[in-house]
Amino acid sequence: MDVLHLRRDQKDWRAQTRVIALKNRLNSGERRLPACRSRQLAETGNWRRIELRAQKCCRQGCRQLQAGSLCSPSHDALRGVLSSPCRPCFAQRGPKVTIDMLMGNYHIAVVGATGAAGTELLRVLERRNFPVASLRAIGSARSAGKSVPFRGESVPVEKLDDRCFDKTDIAFFSAGGDVSRNYVPIACQSDAIAIDKSSAFRMEPHVPLVIPEINADDVRRHRGIIANPNCTTTVMLMALYPLHRIFHVRRVFAASYQAVSGSGTRGVEELTRQTRDAVHGPKSRTKPGSSTSPEATADKTIPASVPPKTRIYPHPIAFNLLPHIDSFLDSGYTKEEVKMQDEARKIMHSPALRVSATCVRVPIYRAHSVAVSAEFQRPLSVEQAREILSKAPGLELIDEPHSNRYPMPLTVAGKDNCQVGRVRLDCAFENGLSFWVSGDQLLKGAALNAVQIAELL
Amino acid sequence: MDVLHLRRDQKDWRAQTRVIALKNRLNSGERRLPACRSRQLAETGNWRRIELRAQKCCRQGCRQLQAGSLCSPSHDALRGVLSSPCRPCFAQRGPKVTIDMLMGNYHIAVVGATGAAGTELLRVLERRNFPVASLRAIGSARSAGKSVPFRGESVPVEKLDDRCFDKTDIAFFSAGGDVSRNYVPIACQSDAIAIDKSSAFRMEPHVPLVIPEINADDVRRHRGIIANPNCTTTVMLMALYPLHRIFHVRRVFAASYQAVSGSGTRGVEELTRQTRDAVHGPKSRTKPGSSTSPEATADKTIPASVPPKTRIYPHPIAFNLLPHIDSFLDSGYTKEEVKMQDEARKIMHSPALRVSATCVRVPIYRAHSVAVSAEFQRPLSVEQAREILSKAPGLELIDEPHSNRYPMPLTVAGKDNCQVGRVRLDCAFENGLSFWVSGDQLLKGAALNAVQIAELL
Repeated sequence: MDVLHLRRDQKDWRAQTRVIALKNRLNSGERRLPACRSRQLAETGNWRRIELRAQKCCRQGCRQLQAGSLCSPSHDALRGVLSSPCRPCFAQRGPKVTIDMLMGNYHIAVVGATGAAGTELLRVLERRNFPVASLRAIGSARSAGKSVPFRGESVPVEKLDDRCFDKTDIAFFSAGGDVSRNYVPIACQSDAIAIDKSSAFRMEPHVPLVIPEINADDVRRHRGIIANPNCTTTVMLMALYPLHRIFHVRRVFAASYQAVSGSGTRGVEELTRQTRDAVHGPKSRTKPGSSTSPEATADKTIPASVPPKTRIYPHPIAFNLLPHIDSFLDSGYTKEEVKMQDEARKIMHSPALRVSATCVRVPIYRAHSVAVSAEFQRPLSVEQAREILSKAPGLELIDEPHSNRYPMPLTVAGKDNCQVGRVRLDCAFENGLSFWVSGDQLLKGAALNAVQIAELL
Repeated sequence: MDVLHLRRDQKDWRAQTRVIALKNRLNSGERRLPACRSRQLAETGNWRRIELRAQKCCRQGCRQLQAGSLCSPSHDALRGVLSSPCRPCFAQRGPKVTIDMLMGNYHIAVVGATGAAGTELLRVLERRNFPVASLRAIGSARSAGKSVPFRGESVPVEKLDDRCFDKTDIAFFSAGGDVSRNYVPIACQSDAIAIDKSSAFRMEPHVPLVIPEINADDVRRHRGIIANPNCTTTVMLMALYPLHRIFHVRRVFAASYQAVSGSGTRGVEELTRQTRDAVHGPKSRTKPGSSTSPEATADKTIPASVPPKTRIYPHPIAFNLLPHIDSFLDSGYTKEEVKMQDEARKIMHSPALRVSATCVRVPIYRAHSVAVSAEFQRPLSVEQAREILSKAPGLELIDEPHSNRYPMPLTVAGKDNCQVGRVRLDCAFENGLSFWVSGDQLLKGAALNAVQIAELL
């Protein structure tokens, strides 16, 4: 058994593991040490273990990784487990591997812990009993000093700095592209694996972009960073990929209907404030029921002449639509729209796929929806499509239009699964299918997907 | 000069004109008497005039129709005008033909005068100085006894019955398909021309379906009924047709974002009530700020667990999306979605055009928007497209994305012109263009278009 027992002082050990990690990053031909390696390097009493067998196991895809190596709480318990045969890792754990067995091993950092996505991430970690040994909630200087709830405790929010990722196994980044660009490399240098929600590294060739139901195997290629796809792309692909596997998609037209929580808590606050101002009149006014009230609006069916105050969006979002998400490119598409094509190509390994998207912010709180028309290489029927979609992982088929059953933001919000419906043969494509897919963009589009990625490690 | 002066008692005259109208309808090879004929049959003092020259003129497209024959307010004035040379009719009137000259000749009936579309129609008639000699506001039994404002007066609402269309020149129908199916034929029998907003007759081969900026000439084919197209189709075609004229559209993918006023005042009331309930909690509750409030929603970014009451729509519309407009067909498309193809084909005389649409109700009060990707036969550039769209009648190009200028419901609501923007080469089509078009569906999508049709008569 290739198990090394090394007695070192902590400083030496950390220096050495950092050198190993850096070497791995520099050597493009070799894979970076996987998460379980980092975890194994964590202290167990005064001894640190490097379990080579587990590492090899993990390089085969984390599938044969010994459960014991992941979670044994003590030196003695680990020693006993190491001699036992391989068991599936917790991402694929069977019912016999209890949560208690698996709990308590990952040192986690959540960057952007007070934001909409970060808050949701903490809930998902808790709800899925993710094995968290320790949690560091990290936020901006503005959030430092606040606290976030986790497993019944109050976790203080630390200010983001270079030392935040010491002794961290997995760092979830949910604080936007700039923070990720600056701090993901620092987290990697601290030997953490970064699971990044931002678009900063998504299209880097050596960074896997992963939706576990679609391309879980890509996780194995990581060298310290794994990217979480764009939320709208994820929602679309959850329905498109199962069909693509069988019929091979060539071309997609997509129009999105995106909720304000996609812009974070400030987007939610903006819609709330503007809606309330429309009902009451803005606070600065003395008279309630002024011209911005929905009642006035209802009478005239003309929106308010006095525009509400805007902070996040360039225009009012309450009772309005903004065909503008992320910044505009010279092509006339927005970055968000281009992501729909680029990320779909990478995730589904379909470099020739063409996706023309229009992304629109709509005045709803939560869950993104996408109207999709897709052209496939192979002919397909609605019955085949429905059968495939009904069996697809992470997806629910809600398609009884004559009973008024179809996916809607209000019914999919808060749910792990995306929902697909309105499935019909497309009348403008040969071998085409149209459908409507909705998904909670804070769950499957962000937090849930990130935790699912972590579960693959 | 072929002017007949006939002295008859009113009953005989009405009987005779009804026979003429019926004959015209029965004889499919011959055109129905145009509006100006009906108008000429109206009383001028105790004399009734049938001016054959005007009728001939009108059969040539209403373009050379004598202004005098349309609008002269008295017997003597008319006599004077008849000997003058042809002038353009008021639909194409120049600045020299004053409004006073043109006022006062059409006997108008508005069916559904208290609804959202009917109310808007009265405003448009007033605003455009449409020459109204008399106005009958017609409503359901529920609305009878109410009154509607028109030109500073209060017009009582009559209950819809078979006698409503006596002595009416033009009857605007804005009361839904069932009312139109039952009463449009009765209006025609009374020798009125029906301009019908409903879908009841739109696809009848002998009924012109007209957007004046696109197919004004089709009005000439009418035999008593002229149909107003579906509002979403109209908004889309206002931007698509100018491009189609030059580049010949073959295929369209469209996703709509439709306001609640498309469902009439009850749709507006539903959104208002549900929004207010979300802010205050429904009236039945004693505590304000219950779980449905946007504040609660904002905190959790999860919509209310207690669904709001629904009356018009099968599901809540506040902070929600319904991929469901009009009823579902066996193909899986809704009637609304199929209209987008069928009506576009008829209006643009493009029977081979394919339109795949997804129509979605969104929680905004007014103006429909459509995300369009269109494939053309001929190659085109964004510059060409922008130039064409900027010059198209009834359309405004709002396309400065880097300055955050693009069409939005809040900015287009209440405007006659539709607005198009987000113009870009489509990345999934050869010879394709994507754009975003918004239009006030109660104006260009309904009332304004109907009055514009009447102006062509």
